[in-house]
Amino acid sequence: MASEAGYAVIRMGDVVREEAARRGIQPTDEEIGGMAHSERETHGSEIWAVRTLERVSADQIVIDGVRSLDEIDYFQKTFGEALAIVAVHASPGTRLTRITERGRKDDILSEEEFHRRDRRELKWGLGEVIALADYVIVNEGGLKEFHKEARRVLRQVFG
Amino acid sequence: MASEAGYAVIRMGDVVREEAARRGIQPTDEEIGGMAHSERETHGSEIWAVRTLERVSADQIVIDGVRSLDEIDYFQKTFGEALAIVAVHASPGTRLTRITERGRKDDILSEEEFHRRDRRELKWGLGEVIALADYVIVNEGGLKEFHKEARRVLRQVFG
Repeated sequence: MASEAGYAVIRMGDVVREEAARRGIQPTDEEIGGMAHSERETHGSEIWAVRTLERVSADQIVIDGVRSLDEIDYFQKTFGEALAIVAVHASPGTRLTRITERGRKDDILSEEEFHRRDRRELKWGLGEVIALADYVIVNEGGLKEFHKEARRVLRQVFG
Repeated sequence: MASEAGYAVIRMGDVVREEAARRGIQPTDEEIGGMAHSERETHGSEIWAVRTLERVSADQIVIDGVRSLDEIDYFQKTFGEALAIVAVHASPGTRLTRITERGRKDDILSEEEFHRRDRRELKWGLGEVIALADYVIVNEGGLKEFHKEARRVLRQVFG
Protein backbone atom coordinates (compact mmCIF):
# COMPACT_ATOMS: atom_id res chain seq x y z
CA MET A 1 0.00 0.00 0.00
CA ALA A 2 2.82 2.38 0.89
CA SER A 3 4.73 1.68 -2.33
CA GLU A 4 1.58 2.16 -4.41
CA ALA A 5 1.01 5.47 -2.67
CA GLY A 6 4.50 6.55 -3.73
CA TYR A 7 6.40 6.28 -0.47
CA ALA A 8 9.83 4.68 -0.18
CA VAL A 9 9.65 1.40 1.74
CA ILE A 10 12.49 -0.38 3.48
CA ARG A 11 12.08 -3.71 5.24
CA MET A 12 14.37 -4.35 8.17
CA GLY A 13 13.97 -8.07 7.51
CA ASP A 14 15.53 -7.52 4.05
CA VAL A 15 18.49 -5.73 5.64
CA VAL A 16 18.99 -8.76 7.90
CA ARG A 17 18.53 -11.29 5.08
CA GLU A 18 20.96 -9.47 2.76
CA GLU A 19 23.58 -9.37 5.51
CA ALA A 20 23.03 -13.11 6.05
CA ALA A 21 23.44 -13.76 2.29
CA ARG A 22 26.64 -11.67 2.20
CA ARG A 23 28.04 -13.92 4.92
CA GLY A 24 26.92 -17.13 3.24
CA ILE A 25 24.53 -18.04 6.06
CA GLN A 26 21.81 -20.62 5.34
CA PRO A 27 18.54 -18.80 4.58
CA THR A 28 16.50 -20.59 7.25
CA ASP A 29 14.47 -18.82 9.95
CA GLU A 30 16.70 -20.29 12.62
CA GLU A 31 20.08 -19.44 11.07
CA ILE A 32 19.05 -15.90 10.12
CA GLY A 33 17.40 -15.35 13.49
CA GLY A 34 20.56 -16.55 15.23
CA MET A 35 22.72 -14.14 13.22
CA ALA A 36 20.33 -11.21 13.89
CA HIS A 37 20.43 -12.07 17.58
CA SER A 38 24.21 -12.32 17.88
CA GLU A 39 24.65 -9.03 16.00
CA ARG A 40 22.37 -7.35 18.57
CA GLU A 41 24.43 -8.86 21.37
CA THR A 42 27.71 -7.71 19.79
CA HIS A 43 26.81 -4.27 18.42
CA GLY A 44 23.85 -3.20 20.57
CA SER A 45 20.10 -3.72 20.35
CA GLU A 46 19.66 -0.91 17.79
CA ILE A 47 22.19 -2.32 15.29
CA TRP A 48 19.58 -3.26 12.66
CA ALA A 49 18.05 0.20 12.92
CA VAL A 50 21.51 1.70 12.34
CA ARG A 51 22.10 -0.47 9.27
CA THR A 52 18.60 0.28 7.98
CA LEU A 53 19.08 4.05 8.21
CA GLU A 54 22.39 3.80 6.34
CA ARG A 55 20.33 2.87 3.28
CA VAL A 56 17.68 5.56 3.65
CA SER A 57 17.83 8.62 1.44
CA ALA A 58 14.15 9.40 0.78
CA ASP A 59 12.29 12.08 2.66
CA GLN A 60 9.07 10.20 3.32
CA ILE A 61 9.74 6.60 4.17
CA VAL A 62 7.99 3.56 5.62
CA ILE A 63 10.25 1.27 7.66
CA ASP A 64 8.85 -2.22 8.14
CA GLY A 65 9.82 -4.68 10.86
CA VAL A 66 10.71 -2.70 13.99
CA ARG A 67 11.20 -5.05 16.94
CA SER A 68 12.08 -2.90 19.96
CA LEU A 69 11.91 0.52 21.59
CA ASP A 70 15.70 0.76 21.27
CA GLU A 71 15.23 0.80 17.50
CA ILE A 72 12.45 3.38 17.87
CA ASP A 73 14.73 5.56 20.02
CA TYR A 74 17.41 5.37 17.35
CA PHE A 75 15.00 6.32 14.56
CA GLN A 76 13.66 9.18 16.69
CA LYS A 77 17.15 10.71 16.84
CA THR A 78 16.95 11.13 13.07
CA PHE A 79 13.26 11.80 12.45
CA GLY A 80 12.27 13.50 15.72
CA GLU A 81 8.62 14.49 16.01
CA ALA A 82 8.01 13.39 12.43
CA LEU A 83 8.40 9.73 13.41
CA ALA A 84 5.11 7.82 13.68
CA ILE A 85 4.76 4.24 14.90
CA VAL A 86 2.12 2.19 13.08
CA ALA A 87 1.24 -1.21 14.54
CA VAL A 88 -0.71 -3.84 12.62
CA HIS A 89 -2.43 -6.17 15.07
CA ALA A 90 -4.17 -9.48 14.55
CA SER A 91 -5.09 -11.88 17.34
CA PRO A 92 -3.07 -15.09 17.80
CA GLY A 93 -6.11 -17.09 16.71
CA THR A 94 -6.44 -15.16 13.45
CA ARG A 95 -2.71 -15.33 12.72
CA LEU A 96 -2.58 -19.07 13.36
CA THR A 97 -5.51 -19.64 10.97
CA ARG A 98 -3.87 -17.52 8.26
CA ILE A 99 -0.50 -19.26 8.59
CA THR A 100 -2.14 -22.68 8.47
CA GLU A 101 -4.14 -21.71 5.38
CA ARG A 102 -1.07 -20.23 3.67
CA GLY A 103 0.84 -23.45 4.30
CA ARG A 104 4.33 -22.18 3.38
CA LYS A 105 6.91 -24.83 4.11
CA ASP A 106 9.02 -22.63 6.39
CA ASP A 107 5.92 -21.77 8.43
CA ILE A 108 5.70 -23.38 11.79
CA LEU A 109 3.55 -26.44 12.18
CA SER A 110 2.02 -27.06 15.59
CA GLU A 111 -0.13 -24.68 17.60
CA GLU A 112 2.21 -25.15 20.54
CA GLU A 113 5.22 -24.13 18.45
CA PHE A 114 3.31 -21.12 17.13
CA HIS A 115 2.70 -19.85 20.67
CA ARG A 116 6.31 -20.56 21.66
CA ARG A 117 7.56 -18.52 18.69
CA ASP A 118 5.21 -15.66 19.57
CA ARG A 119 6.60 -15.46 23.10
CA ARG A 120 10.18 -15.73 21.84
CA GLU A 121 9.73 -12.90 19.34
CA LEU A 122 8.22 -10.66 22.02
CA LYS A 123 11.45 -10.89 23.99
CA TRP A 124 13.00 -8.09 21.92
CA GLY A 125 10.27 -5.71 23.04
CA LEU A 126 7.86 -5.74 20.11
CA GLY A 127 4.94 -5.58 22.56
CA GLU A 128 6.25 -2.30 23.96
CA VAL A 129 6.41 -0.85 20.46
CA ILE A 130 2.78 -1.88 19.85
CA ALA A 131 1.71 -0.46 23.22
CA LEU A 132 3.26 2.92 22.37
CA ALA A 133 2.14 2.99 18.72
CA ASP A 134 0.67 6.20 17.33
CA TYR A 135 -1.67 4.21 15.07
CA VAL A 136 -3.01 0.68 15.44
CA ILE A 137 -4.59 -1.08 12.49
CA VAL A 138 -6.76 -3.98 13.67
CA ASN A 139 -6.33 -6.60 10.97
CA GLU A 140 -9.07 -9.11 11.76
CA GLY A 141 -11.10 -8.78 8.58
CA GLY A 142 -10.34 -9.35 4.93
CA LEU A 143 -7.62 -7.86 2.72
CA LYS A 144 -9.96 -5.22 1.29
CA GLU A 145 -10.77 -3.87 4.74
CA PHE A 146 -7.08 -3.88 5.67
CA HIS A 147 -6.11 -1.99 2.50
CA LYS A 148 -8.71 0.68 3.25
CA GLU A 149 -7.42 1.11 6.81
CA ALA A 150 -3.78 1.18 5.65
CA ARG A 151 -4.55 3.92 3.11
CA ARG A 152 -6.37 5.93 5.79
CA VAL A 153 -3.44 5.67 8.22
CA LEU A 154 -0.84 6.48 5.53
CA ARG A 155 -2.80 9.64 4.69
CA GLN A 156 -2.87 10.61 8.37
CA VAL A 157 0.84 9.96 8.88
CA PHE A 158 2.11 11.74 5.76
CA GLY A 159 -0.63 14.37 5.66
CA MET B 1 -20.16 -1.19 29.77
CA ALA B 2 -19.55 -4.69 31.16
CA SER B 3 -21.46 -3.98 34.39
CA GLU B 4 -24.37 -2.52 32.45
CA ALA B 5 -24.43 -5.63 30.28
CA GLY B 6 -24.76 -7.71 33.44
CA TYR B 7 -21.27 -9.16 33.76
CA ALA B 8 -19.35 -9.28 37.01
CA VAL B 9 -16.38 -6.90 36.95
CA ILE B 10 -13.31 -7.02 39.14
CA ARG B 11 -10.55 -4.43 38.94
CA MET B 12 -7.07 -5.62 39.84
CA GLY B 13 -6.23 -2.04 40.81
CA ASP B 14 -8.98 -2.22 43.47
CA VAL B 15 -7.47 -5.43 44.85
CA VAL B 16 -4.12 -3.65 45.14
CA ARG B 17 -5.63 -0.48 46.64
CA GLU B 18 -7.65 -2.43 49.23
CA GLU B 19 -4.56 -4.35 50.30
CA ALA B 20 -2.72 -1.02 50.62
CA ALA B 21 -5.55 0.41 52.76
CA ARG B 22 -5.55 -2.70 54.97
CA ARG B 23 -1.85 -2.08 55.62
CA GLY B 24 -2.30 1.61 56.27
CA ILE B 25 -0.22 2.62 53.23
CA GLN B 26 -0.57 6.19 51.92
CA PRO B 27 -2.94 6.17 48.91
CA THR B 28 -0.51 7.83 46.51
CA ASP B 29 0.46 6.40 43.13
CA GLU B 30 4.04 6.02 44.29
CA GLU B 31 3.36 4.32 47.65
CA ILE B 32 0.77 1.94 46.20
CA GLY B 33 2.96 1.21 43.19
CA GLY B 34 5.87 0.46 45.50
CA MET B 35 3.79 -1.98 47.54
CA ALA B 36 2.45 -3.71 44.41
CA HIS B 37 6.01 -4.01 43.15
CA SER B 38 7.51 -5.45 46.36
CA GLU B 39 4.65 -7.97 46.62
CA ARG B 40 5.48 -9.19 43.11
CA GLU B 41 9.14 -9.50 44.08
CA THR B 42 8.28 -11.43 47.27
CA HIS B 43 5.41 -13.66 46.14
CA GLY B 44 5.94 -13.96 42.37
CA SER B 45 4.86 -11.91 39.39
CA GLU B 46 1.37 -13.46 39.32
CA ILE B 47 0.54 -12.58 42.97
CA TRP B 48 -2.11 -9.96 42.10
CA ALA B 49 -3.77 -12.41 39.72
CA VAL B 50 -3.86 -14.98 42.54
CA ARG B 51 -5.45 -12.49 44.96
CA THR B 52 -7.90 -11.34 42.28
CA LEU B 53 -9.11 -14.87 41.55
CA GLU B 54 -9.65 -15.53 45.28
CA ARG B 55 -12.51 -13.04 45.06
CA VAL B 56 -14.09 -14.36 41.89
CA SER B 57 -17.21 -16.47 42.12
CA ALA B 58 -19.18 -15.46 39.03
CA ASP B 59 -19.24 -17.53 35.87
CA GLN B 60 -18.84 -14.73 33.35
CA ILE B 61 -16.43 -12.11 34.55
CA VAL B 62 -14.44 -9.15 33.26
CA ILE B 63 -11.07 -8.67 34.97
CA ASP B 64 -9.62 -5.19 34.51
CA GLY B 65 -5.98 -4.19 34.87
CA VAL B 66 -3.83 -7.13 33.74
CA ARG B 67 -0.16 -6.12 33.54
CA SER B 68 1.80 -9.19 32.42
CA LEU B 69 1.73 -12.52 30.63
CA ASP B 70 2.47 -14.22 33.98
CA GLU B 71 -0.93 -13.02 35.17
CA ILE B 72 -2.49 -14.22 31.90
CA ASP B 73 -0.87 -17.63 32.35
CA TYR B 74 -2.30 -17.85 35.87
CA PHE B 75 -5.82 -16.91 34.71
CA GLN B 76 -5.55 -19.41 31.87
CA LYS B 77 -5.02 -22.22 34.38
CA THR B 78 -8.51 -21.47 35.71
CA PHE B 79 -10.41 -20.35 32.62
CA GLY B 80 -8.58 -22.33 29.91
CA GLU B 81 -9.83 -21.76 26.37
CA ALA B 82 -12.64 -19.55 27.68
CA LEU B 83 -10.15 -16.80 28.59
CA ALA B 84 -10.11 -13.88 26.17
CA ILE B 85 -7.69 -10.96 26.32
CA VAL B 86 -9.19 -7.58 25.40
CA ALA B 87 -6.78 -4.67 24.96
CA VAL B 88 -7.92 -1.06 24.82
CA HIS B 89 -5.37 1.01 22.92
CA ALA B 90 -4.93 4.75 22.57
CA SER B 91 -1.81 6.44 21.25
CA PRO B 92 0.52 8.26 23.68
CA GLY B 93 -0.50 11.57 22.08
CA THR B 94 -4.21 10.90 22.65
CA ARG B 95 -3.66 9.71 26.22
CA LEU B 96 -1.53 12.73 27.09
CA THR B 97 -4.20 15.10 25.75
CA ARG B 98 -6.93 13.33 27.73
CA ILE B 99 -4.94 13.35 30.98
CA THR B 100 -4.13 17.04 30.56
CA GLU B 101 -7.77 17.87 29.87
CA ARG B 102 -8.96 15.79 32.85
CA GLY B 103 -6.50 17.61 35.09
CA ARG B 104 -6.81 15.31 38.13
CA LYS B 105 -4.32 16.35 40.78
CA ASP B 106 -2.64 12.92 41.04
CA ASP B 107 -2.15 12.89 37.27
CA ILE B 108 1.34 13.47 36.06
CA LEU B 109 2.30 16.90 34.85
CA SER B 110 5.04 17.14 32.29
CA GLU B 111 5.17 15.42 28.92
CA GLU B 112 8.59 14.05 29.81
CA GLU B 113 7.26 12.50 33.02
CA PHE B 114 4.32 11.04 31.10
CA HIS B 115 6.65 9.22 28.72
CA ARG B 116 8.87 8.05 31.59
CA ARG B 117 5.83 6.58 33.39
CA ASP B 118 4.71 4.84 30.19
CA ARG B 119 8.07 3.13 29.83
CA ARG B 120 8.17 2.21 33.52
CA GLU B 121 4.71 0.63 33.43
CA LEU B 122 5.63 -1.40 30.37
CA LYS B 123 8.39 -3.10 32.35
CA TRP B 124 5.90 -5.62 33.81
CA GLY B 125 5.08 -6.85 30.32
CA LEU B 126 1.84 -5.02 29.50
CA GLY B 127 3.01 -4.61 25.91
CA GLU B 128 3.26 -8.38 25.53
CA VAL B 129 -0.31 -8.75 26.78
CA ILE B 130 -1.48 -6.19 24.19
CA ALA B 131 0.52 -7.90 21.44
CA LEU B 132 -1.15 -11.24 22.20
CA ALA B 133 -4.66 -9.83 22.77
CA ASP B 134 -7.62 -11.64 21.22
CA TYR B 135 -9.43 -8.31 20.72
CA VAL B 136 -8.05 -4.79 20.39
CA ILE B 137 -10.33 -1.81 20.79
CA VAL B 138 -8.76 1.28 19.20
CA ASN B 139 -9.87 4.12 21.46
CA GLU B 140 -8.95 7.22 19.44
CA GLY B 141 -12.43 8.65 18.96
CA GLY B 142 -15.11 9.82 21.34
CA LEU B 143 -16.82 8.01 24.22
CA LYS B 144 -19.84 7.09 22.09
CA GLU B 145 -17.66 5.33 19.54
CA PHE B 146 -15.77 3.54 22.32
CA HIS B 147 -18.99 2.36 23.99
CA LYS B 148 -20.23 0.92 20.71
CA GLU B 149 -16.96 -0.96 20.17
CA ALA B 150 -16.91 -2.20 23.78
CA ARG B 151 -20.46 -3.58 23.44
CA ARG B 152 -19.51 -5.30 20.18
CA VAL B 153 -16.46 -6.96 21.73
CA LEU B 154 -18.34 -8.01 24.89
CA ARG B 155 -20.95 -9.71 22.70
CA GLN B 156 -18.21 -11.53 20.78
CA VAL B 157 -16.40 -12.63 23.96
CA PHE B 158 -19.42 -13.86 25.88
CA GLY B 159 -21.43 -14.97 22.84
